[in-house]
Amino acid sequence: MTGLIAVDWGTSSFRLWLMRPDGTAIAEARGPEGMAHCLEAGFAPVLSRYLEQVSAPPDWPVLICGMAGARQGWAEAPYADLPAPVGAIAAAALRLPPEQAGKRDIRILPGLARRNPHRPDVMRGEETQLLGLALAGYNGLVCMPGTHCKWAVLEGGAVTDFKSFMTGELYHLLTQHSILRLSLPARDQHAPDDPDFLEGVDQALDDPGCLVEALFPIRAGALLGFGQGETSRARLSGLVIGSEIARMLPQIGAGDLTLLGQQGLGALYLSAMRRAKLDPQLADAELATRRGLLAAARKIWSL
Amino acid sequence: MTGLIAVDWGTSSFRLWLMRPDGTAIAEARGPEGMAHCLEAGFAPVLSRYLEQVSAPPDWPVLICGMAGARQGWAEAPYADLPAPVGAIAAAALRLPPEQAGKRDIRILPGLARRNPHRPDVMRGEETQLLGLALAGYNGLVCMPGTHCKWAVLEGGAVTDFKSFMTGELYHLLTQHSILRLSLPARDQHAPDDPDFLEGVDQALDDPGCLVEALFPIRAGALLGFGQGETSRARLSGLVIGSEIARMLPQIGAGDLTLLGQQGLGALYLSAMRRAKLDPQLADAELATRRGLLAAARKIWSL
Repeated sequence: MTGLIAVDWGTSSFRLWLMRPDGTAIAEARGPEGMAHCLEAGFAPVLSRYLEQVSAPPDWPVLICGMAGARQGWAEAPYADLPAPVGAIAAAALRLPPEQAGKRDIRILPGLARRNPHRPDVMRGEETQLLGLALAGYNGLVCMPGTHCKWAVLEGGAVTDFKSFMTGELYHLLTQHSILRLSLPARDQHAPDDPDFLEGVDQALDDPGCLVEALFPIRAGALLGFGQGETSRARLSGLVIGSEIARMLPQIGAGDLTLLGQQGLGALYLSAMRRAKLDPQLADAELATRRGLLAAARKIWSL
Repeated sequence: MTGLIAVDWGTSSFRLWLMRPDGTAIAEARGPEGMAHCLEAGFAPVLSRYLEQVSAPPDWPVLICGMAGARQGWAEAPYADLPAPVGAIAAAALRLPPEQAGKRDIRILPGLARRNPHRPDVMRGEETQLLGLALAGYNGLVCMPGTHCKWAVLEGGAVTDFKSFMTGELYHLLTQHSILRLSLPARDQHAPDDPDFLEGVDQALDDPGCLVEALFPIRAGALLGFGQGETSRARLSGLVIGSEIARMLPQIGAGDLTLLGQQGLGALYLSAMRRAKLDPQLADAELATRRGLLAAARKIWSL
């Protein structure tokens, strides 16, 4: 084997890299053909088109992470269990049969499951980013902002625990589907240092658990002429993210904390964390994904 | 004036009573023609049809409470301020001009506003139920379950404070629009003593603020084969209602607590309150509305 085709196949995005065994990316391609697109269009044609686009050598294997391995994805790669060291995740990769893969060796990495009936949890895709950090020798807590933000614990090269928050989805539900939408502008952006965002964060940090009673006043304030719509949207964003961080604070402790990704939502988390006097290390999410795919590939193919 | 036509005109329902001055209802009518229906169909034709249906005497006045007085309703009856005694609410009733009302005297009661920029709040319709309780001499806290549950303070015949929770709407959003819907059955009912509902209530009472991290495990549990869909729905219901009650507990204190309405959602609140070792007095919501409309009518027309 002279190289690897690494693929991050999420719900709404597709990214592919041609990588040398040392991890150098010699070509890449990306597009919106995530799982949601492929449910109708199929997965194989999308992969074929991208392989052609980057002139992928026919004998290089493909390693995929993300939602392509979900039950409703291309083929279900069952969840691996905790604690999950790099080797265990790599070993649990699902190899597609020839009728799906053709002559190429195509494998899909599993997600991770916390099989505790009192607090079950799952992730799919983020485990690969965590592998990248584990490979770099990181021990500590990792925050991965997203629609369902994950906080994971890395110890001795393994994922030992994690917890998901529906914060991003909750914000979407409230701004798009609840009565609050009537008072909020369509524009969905605010700066990480927006004073109203920070005020929302502060309120949640000062009074963890306030979220359930802090929502309706956003509507009432608009009806009574307090605050503009954009003010309210930034404040709501601060409230939901602040509530998540307030909830995590007692569990963060004195160990290392890393924020994975500082674009978009990540920038808001960073701002809110600093408001809570946290000083996370910063890591690049995409780089972590590539490193994780490479780490797993090395275990699978002795790259 | 020999009688009153009392109308409770909500978002999704219409109720009308022909009442003698002593409060006896001699006829009533009800239907689904709430504000949502009337936005297109118009308000006047709906009222006319119901007046005809109950053979309303032409010289009896009409007093309306509820969303018909909202900005997007029949005519906006501006919010009255706190503290709001019966007389002030009655005095703020909006009289419809002849071009809308014809020859009849038709008035719409205002809602209530808490004009505090730090915690603004509004209600429309519930103030009339509170008048009914105030008239009966009640002092204390009142819980009014609904899409936006209200907790109000009655003191000396006046509403002095209140707070709204979006609990009912949050439950709707989560079960109908979030990823959790994929794991929940369509059937939207569970008994107030359902063990999973009570478990959700207990979790929220034991750990106020847990809601933000208790949501995703409902999805993860379904993916991992823990719990059935109906179990999860009851549990989610307990979690959201329990979170509201846990939040209110420190404010309830030793004074009187009344639960207004024990049907449907009200029965769930009663069960959750008892789980929190609260022993609310029980009052009938519809009776409170009728009494409130009568109390206000007496102030307006010296009935």
